Amino acid sequence: MQRFPFEAIAIVRSPYREKFAIPRQPGLVDVLSTVELLPPYNRAEAVRGLASFSHIWLSFVFHGVVREGWKPTVRPPRLGGNERVGVFASRATHRPNPLGLSAVELVAVECDSAGVRLQVRGADLLDGTPVVDIKPYLPYADSLPEAQGGYAPQAPDTRLAVVFSELAAATLVQQQHSYPALASLIEQLLALDPRPAYHSDDPQRGYGLALYDFNLRFVVADGVATVVAIEPLAAD
Amino acid sequence: MQRFPFEAIAIVRSPYREKFAIPRQPGLVDVLSTVELLPPYNRAEAVRGLASFSHIWLSFVFHGVVREGWKPTVRPPRLGGNERVGVFASRATHRPNPLGLSAVELVAVECDSAGVRLQVRGADLLDGTPVVDIKPYLPYADSLPEAQGGYAPQAPDTRLAVVFSELAAATLVQQQHSYPALASLIEQLLALDPRPAYHSDDPQRGYGLALYDFNLRFVVADGVATVVAIEPLAAD
Repeated sequence: MQRFPFEAIAIVRSPYREKFAIPRQPGLVDVLSTVELLPPYNRAEAVRGLASFSHIWLSFVFHGVVREGWKPTVRPPRLGGNERVGVFASRATHRPNPLGLSAVELVAVECDSAGVRLQVRGADLLDGTPVVDIKPYLPYADSLPEAQGGYAPQAPDTRLAVVFSELAAATLVQQQHSYPALASLIEQLLALDPRPAYHSDDPQRGYGLALYDFNLRFVVADGVATVVAIEPLAAD
Repeated sequence: MQRFPFEAIAIVRSPYREKFAIPRQPGLVDVLSTVELLPPYNRAEAVRGLASFSHIWLSFVFHGVVREGWKPTVRPPRLGGNERVGVFASRATHRPNPLGLSAVELVAVECDSAGVRLQVRGADLLDGTPVVDIKPYLPYADSLPEAQGGYAPQAPDTRLAVVFSELAAATLVQQQHSYPALASLIEQLLALDPRPAYHSDDPQRGYGLALYDFNLRFVVADGVATVVAIEPLAAD
């Protein structure tokens, strides 16, 4: 069998501290992340000319599931979670090689004495994700607007309205200076309904979600997600 | 350092028997290739539902250059071969992890007792290329027609007219039954001018190119590529 040892060339720093609630494709949520190049690749010359491209490809490893192995079929959330398709007909994480692929907007290329960092918008990547390749997005080869997207022809609809409890709203005000985008990010994420497809509404059921340094607690009823509290994330 | 051992899940069968003359991005040339899934992944259930997508991503290994290592900068043919950009600002082969990425048209999914094969159109892949992942192309996430393509904003122009010598034309007639697409493929490949960017026209200079089971010999002068002969490829 042919094996190829790939190494991390960069690490993602993102507000997503757990897999739950990460949007299932890039570009669905306006969120900023940082791609930090690792030595010996964190040299300005390795990214020379990259800033003239508006978007880049990140090839990354689903590092949270590396040890769990692959499954020949998966149940995509887009099919309601109760229909199986082949793993190669999906973008699911439990793949023979746990490789992910995301096109993201390149906001800035920063090179200084600390190294090389790419600021990107719209990534759907867990904090700490190892990146194995960075490539420019070439619209003439990569953009195929006429492609037929099978069971996922369009972006998923936003499905929930989002409201904040008084307690949660007060925390947002307190954190406004340090986390100016927090309220908007929470609204966008919860509107996409991060609950597993097989969960029906149960207003008693509480959900937690780790974002930046916070644990978000919310409930869902009648098409409305209510953010109950935004609490400090317990240290690991 | 984080290392991830990836394995080949499929092998490409294509008419391109050497790197020279492979188009530098997918979709530039109308050519058919086959992606043969390898055991234990060559099961119909692993590709269930894939046929409803018109295009797929192939993540593959530039296996011809694995041992040659990476270079921090490269000279893209699109910049005339005399300007350097960072390896991460290019799609060049000599990358820290020699990963390639191509969107190709999915023509057919064949599952039978011999295994699973995907027939694809437009691949820019060497015969024998190891594939490490197959994913559906999702137009809503992957197609970004407004993206700015830096130094490669559009597909390269065709640059050469192509003519066949009497000898070469006779071979095409002989091979018409076994290789009906050969003449068209040769015309498309040579029109893109596969010569290195630093080669100027020298009508005395002969070029060879391995395609299917043939060695193509051609010369270039005054914007015209002349196919001198189409000979059987010597056995390895």
